[in-house]
Amino acid sequence: MTRTIVASATKEVVIGFDQPFCVIGERINPTGRKKLAAEMVAGNFETVKNDALAQVAAGATMLDVNAGVTAVDPNATEPGLLVQTLEIVQELVDVPLSIDSSVSAAIEAGLKAARGRPLVNSVTGEEEKLEAILPLIKKYDVPVVAISNDETGISEDPDVRFEVAKKIVQRAADFGIPAHDIVVDPLVMPIGAMGTAGQQVFRLLRRLREELKVNTTCGLSNISFGLPHRHGINAGFIPMVIGAGMTSAIMNPCRPQEMEMVRAANVLNGTDPNCSRWIMTYRDHQPAAAGAAPTAAAPASGSGRRRGGRDARRARE
Amino acid sequence: MTRTIVASATKEVVIGFDQPFCVIGERINPTGRKKLAAEMVAGNFETVKNDALAQVAAGATMLDVNAGVTAVDPNATEPGLLVQTLEIVQELVDVPLSIDSSVSAAIEAGLKAARGRPLVNSVTGEEEKLEAILPLIKKYDVPVVAISNDETGISEDPDVRFEVAKKIVQRAADFGIPAHDIVVDPLVMPIGAMGTAGQQVFRLLRRLREELKVNTTCGLSNISFGLPHRHGINAGFIPMVIGAGMTSAIMNPCRPQEMEMVRAANVLNGTDPNCSRWIMTYRDHQPAAAGAAPTAAAPASGSGRRRGGRDARRARE
Repeated sequence: MTRTIVASATKEVVIGFDQPFCVIGERINPTGRKKLAAEMVAGNFETVKNDALAQVAAGATMLDVNAGVTAVDPNATEPGLLVQTLEIVQELVDVPLSIDSSVSAAIEAGLKAARGRPLVNSVTGEEEKLEAILPLIKKYDVPVVAISNDETGISEDPDVRFEVAKKIVQRAADFGIPAHDIVVDPLVMPIGAMGTAGQQVFRLLRRLREELKVNTTCGLSNISFGLPHRHGINAGFIPMVIGAGMTSAIMNPCRPQEMEMVRAANVLNGTDPNCSRWIMTYRDHQPAAAGAAPTAAAPASGSGRRRGGRDARRARE
Repeated sequence: MTRTIVASATKEVVIGFDQPFCVIGERINPTGRKKLAAEMVAGNFETVKNDALAQVAAGATMLDVNAGVTAVDPNATEPGLLVQTLEIVQELVDVPLSIDSSVSAAIEAGLKAARGRPLVNSVTGEEEKLEAILPLIKKYDVPVVAISNDETGISEDPDVRFEVAKKIVQRAADFGIPAHDIVVDPLVMPIGAMGTAGQQVFRLLRRLREELKVNTTCGLSNISFGLPHRHGINAGFIPMVIGAGMTSAIMNPCRPQEMEMVRAANVLNGTDPNCSRWIMTYRDHQPAAAGAAPTAAAPASGSGRRRGGRDARRARE
């Protein structure tokens, strides 16, 4: 059974086929968040702190930490800013972290600063990347996200993407890195632009699990890019990727609809023994009025109202 | 490609692997609805009519019609009541119907009354049932739901349930009924009572699709029986069964959360070409306030507000 172990100073998490889905909080990332980027450059980490606390409170298993503020010279500025951000976050919360950067020097600086066993996000199949990142993975004995593209870009053929993932796993093995420390990102395309994007990913996930036997992850919300009501598509995508074998995702845990589907899929996938997490979260759930949309969990509610009546009697036969 | 054709007097629907998920509305069923049973016995069909209209408006592909009011002698009363109910429903809505009864005489009476090509719900692997129902299926040239239990009950072993389904398909072939007219119900157990119920069904669905090449259905809400916030579990189950190959379900289309997941899974499964049904349904969707639960689609809204900003920019890479 494939097990990828990540850890903070005090908390160990296993990513694996028999584990609850690992939710990697995506919020601490200034890419596309101009205000956050400006704050971080100015040494203001209030939003970072709020995002760290909110994501953990919402149920994130780990947090991704990115400090890519698109400076003129990222090699000079990003390592320091990433280290500063990591230190602030790991001071505040005890979940394992993912060190997210496209700058190799920032990743190494982050690896020196992070406590426990962080995940590195990411390496690709590009030769230059493999040569820069894999030695760090070996040296610091940490797991890494492997994105299945290479110098030729992102193939539209899922079998080519599978081969890129396989190549990364093999190259990692040459460095003495075991396959269970490679978490493959099969790359999720927007379904609005490519109608087969879902089926591609489901097929790839099954092959990655059955043939390469690796854990997997993705930038989940990519799937709904460009569509109206993106959260509905994201929410539907979660049980489907979990059913196809995906074991983690980089996503926004502060969206109740998406987190509800993670919890439901854990129940249905057999990784929430005795449904105990589900029951704990939703035992005091207030059903919405008939015909209205259900509301999020209200675990603090003391009314003790339970679902019942016709609904509870509704098992067929 | 397996195609099960059902039809009303004016409308044909195909159940198939390459088709949008077929939602069979479950509401017209007095089982466990004492008030409805009393109304129907008294000749009052107002609730039946309202349920028919509401389910079709909510997006049901077909409607299940059951008149099992648990009389002293169902053989005497149920055929007449079922025919009356079918006639009222098919007068009111134009979707195909499913004739749902455990009384063979009622099924035959229903088959005489129903227009188009109704689905019969159901036959099992029990010898007596096979002998009673399969000749009717052949005579009236209609498809049938085949429930995978037999005289020995419902096996907890999914491979035994597969064998029961296979036996029904073979027996049907002996009668000259093609496999594409058998819609197998693999039987969904409550996940709260049996932690492997989900994985069992996913495995069975894959085998039924790949080996028997049949369409499938289930009483969907059984999965969540006994748990709090059942609609959340049902909603998560829908994309998972669709991903595993299920092509229809008997469910309540009046629940927006469940129907949203049907629509999302159709997009992700490639059976909503160009996402056009999704876009049509949700283009004017009002996003809920951050942190709150999303609301149901509001297609009549004229505000024209679109999702955008940070969210729309959020595609990774």
